Amino acid sequence: MHETYMKLALEEARKAETIGEVPIGAVVVRQGEVIATGHNLRETSQNPLTHAEMIAINRASEVLGSWRLEGCTLYVTLEPCVMCSGAIVMSRIPHVVYGANDKKGGTVESLMHLLDEPRFNHRALVTSGVLEAECSTMLKSFFKALRQKRKNQPGD
Amino acid sequence: MHETYMKLALEEARKAETIGEVPIGAVVVRQGEVIATGHNLRETSQNPLTHAEMIAINRASEVLGSWRLEGCTLYVTLEPCVMCSGAIVMSRIPHVVYGANDKKGGTVESLMHLLDEPRFNHRALVTSGVLEAECSTMLKSFFKALRQKRKNQPGD
Repeated sequence: MHETYMKLALEEARKAETIGEVPIGAVVVRQGEVIATGHNLRETSQNPLTHAEMIAINRASEVLGSWRLEGCTLYVTLEPCVMCSGAIVMSRIPHVVYGANDKKGGTVESLMHLLDEPRFNHRALVTSGVLEAECSTMLKSFFKALRQKRKNQPGD
Repeated sequence: MHETYMKLALEEARKAETIGEVPIGAVVVRQGEVIATGHNLRETSQNPLTHAEMIAINRASEVLGSWRLEGCTLYVTLEPCVMCSGAIVMSRIPHVVYGANDKKGGTVESLMHLLDEPRFNHRALVTSGVLEAECSTMLKSFFKALRQKRKNQPGD
């Protein structure tokens, strides 16, 4: 079940990759239905808030007509950063499923445990490592290609 | 200088209060110029991302045409929450000035120090307590009036 939705998040990540964005994708599921999707658009939009999760949360709240995303599960290919972890807390998402860990910036399990913080007024259930290899490989391939491109265009 | 801009943030907070929102306001200043403003719109918009700081950051990035809010100072009446602290890190805002502490949810000085976290790739200078009494009083008055209203309308 988790893998089915993570594949959709990976499809979203692929859309980001196609336009030169770091490939990260997210979907919000409620009662078995995908109600919102998003992929990283930071460079395209030049907007710091356009991480995949933020776009998906924004759309999900539009669909539900509520800032409380009750009964929703957020699937995302990479461990959320501090902003997206905060948005998950603020939108009261009960369950977060992610693929690859982000050792440098992840705040769900890597650097911090912001979704399991007793002093916040919301905590989320976390399932990690779903399709981890696929999620991780997509990111590694992207950065490898980027380094290669930069190496070939030193004056760029 | 800080007080001048905090007064503008308080004016933004007043706009939120006028429409029944928790009175929190923010402005983004660059080279002495106010380039973006925002006030809390969570209930009106039913969108969990519409905190005052997020709206101001969103607009500032539009104005600058960049996700990097270099050279900007964010003024906000209340200590930022985890989502807004994260957005400050993600947008690389170098200086944050706030009024009142938020002992229950503030993640700049109260619960955590997310803007001074060595493991993140950005840290911000923080100035707190600017027009603290005015910022705090506005919030306290709002919640007092809300409690009174609820008391008078028990079946509402």
